[in-house]
Amino acid sequence: MADSSQDGPFWFTESLPSYWDENLRTQVRVHRVLHEERTPYQHIQVFDVGNFGRSLLLDGIVQTSEADEFIYHEMVALLPCLLHGRPRDVLVIGGGDGGALRRALAMSTVRRAVQVELDERVIQVSRRFLPSISRGAFDDPRAQVIIGDGLAWVARFRRQFDVAIVDLTDPTDEGPSSPLYAAPFFRDLKRALRGRGVLSIQSGSLTFQPEWVRRLREELSSVFPHVRLHTAVVPSYQAGLFAFLFASGRPLPRLTPATFARRLSLVQDEVRYLSYEVYRASMALPPYLAERLGIPQR
Amino acid sequence: MADSSQDGPFWFTESLPSYWDENLRTQVRVHRVLHEERTPYQHIQVFDVGNFGRSLLLDGIVQTSEADEFIYHEMVALLPCLLHGRPRDVLVIGGGDGGALRRALAMSTVRRAVQVELDERVIQVSRRFLPSISRGAFDDPRAQVIIGDGLAWVARFRRQFDVAIVDLTDPTDEGPSSPLYAAPFFRDLKRALRGRGVLSIQSGSLTFQPEWVRRLREELSSVFPHVRLHTAVVPSYQAGLFAFLFASGRPLPRLTPATFARRLSLVQDEVRYLSYEVYRASMALPPYLAERLGIPQR
Repeated sequence: MADSSQDGPFWFTESLPSYWDENLRTQVRVHRVLHEERTPYQHIQVFDVGNFGRSLLLDGIVQTSEADEFIYHEMVALLPCLLHGRPRDVLVIGGGDGGALRRALAMSTVRRAVQVELDERVIQVSRRFLPSISRGAFDDPRAQVIIGDGLAWVARFRRQFDVAIVDLTDPTDEGPSSPLYAAPFFRDLKRALRGRGVLSIQSGSLTFQPEWVRRLREELSSVFPHVRLHTAVVPSYQAGLFAFLFASGRPLPRLTPATFARRLSLVQDEVRYLSYEVYRASMALPPYLAERLGIPQR
Repeated sequence: MADSSQDGPFWFTESLPSYWDENLRTQVRVHRVLHEERTPYQHIQVFDVGNFGRSLLLDGIVQTSEADEFIYHEMVALLPCLLHGRPRDVLVIGGGDGGALRRALAMSTVRRAVQVELDERVIQVSRRFLPSISRGAFDDPRAQVIIGDGLAWVARFRRQFDVAIVDLTDPTDEGPSSPLYAAPFFRDLKRALRGRGVLSIQSGSLTFQPEWVRRLREELSSVFPHVRLHTAVVPSYQAGLFAFLFASGRPLPRLTPATFARRLSLVQDEVRYLSYEVYRASMALPPYLAERLGIPQR
């Protein structure tokens, strides 16, 4: 890890999880370290990284960057709302930067968004140094932020939500998020959702960890009868195709252009990444990846 | 640039063109330097880079890697053949590794493929160290390889080809390939093509050089009435969305699933990346990129 006491530009090597690709690493030129602290849970850094704007890092891994946060957040938070159609109550697990909360609240149908974040400092640091990501979402009267353990909180909810968004640090076998990428938690999420409820979960790099995505998809499928993989390119992750898994007790719709447009008109925020074509393209899985995931091809 | 006399694993920093993103760089762990030489035209290296297999580098930039060459080559060479439908004569400019030639020859309708490559050593080195990419294409009796200047050679051809594939080093303002990314060369290519002919040109990183892709698209549009942008993720380029531009004197078709399947059945080689869904997805342009390219959105 770079010496963050440096103030001028320096090259920072991202601590990519070794299960990604131990033969590859990405360096970003850090123009300024805006913030750095160690909380009881993790190491938080905010860098000014030139073209990507400001980046939030947790334990040395880029979580979100101003320049392309909209791609990630429209996929992980807005798309499940569009798939549901008329969500009233939304649950966000993690997502301390506020980008997912903001997109959930952008749906005019939403009357309540509950966010459970473990580390209060991530929210505080994001609100101070990355305000363009949450854009006032934390002050929205419909937002309710709970500082606490997602695992414990989700177990208390019963059929209260239309959409649940799991926006956590990257899945690893040993990291603090690992119990939240497993069937017991998914069962609790299913109980927290209403019948037509949609679960959305960021699922890491399909390009660099296809085996992990496969396992996660299978784990979700053991709980939810309907699971679908979508992908997007989020440039600042340098992850190739990034994976988003959606799950529901009811079939996930294949929206028509007209239905997509009608639902998109309910969004009271700018939408810069998603369109009908992009939504449809996000479901196209190249045959070589379908094979690695064990997904039968048409 | 790394000291290539080292034999053990070392981190090699790719000399990404500065117009990409001067705040970002990629390092690959080189397990072994298999070959290295300086020709009158460029610096050739072949590295064993772990998960990506063997990589060919020209002037310090990854051109192709065994692990994902099929993505790039199916897009740049096979897709224009599928868009044409029944190509008989194909022209390849550059493409010394043989991957484009191989995909052109894979179409059972092709009776002749002419390749013009400036640097014979790229072909020789690729045949020796990366034989899995060309897979015997250079020995195909339908292949005709010309060592020479693409600019001069293309000017001699008149309505002889159904598909022309421009597979050159990355577009730059000053590099040796720069005269081949300009309107005069495109006019010669148009004359070399038959009426229904399709031009395909690798167009660099849409994510990191959208202004360049915009200029190239506009330059092509000044010569060809029909130009279309497609994208793909080629992991070893670490380029986000990689751009491929197609151009023709006739409207580029939007293939139906049935037509795509019928044309795909003419391919006598494995196809691991393209499917109807992937073809269709490759045309979906996120609104924020359409805006940067000055492409009107529907």
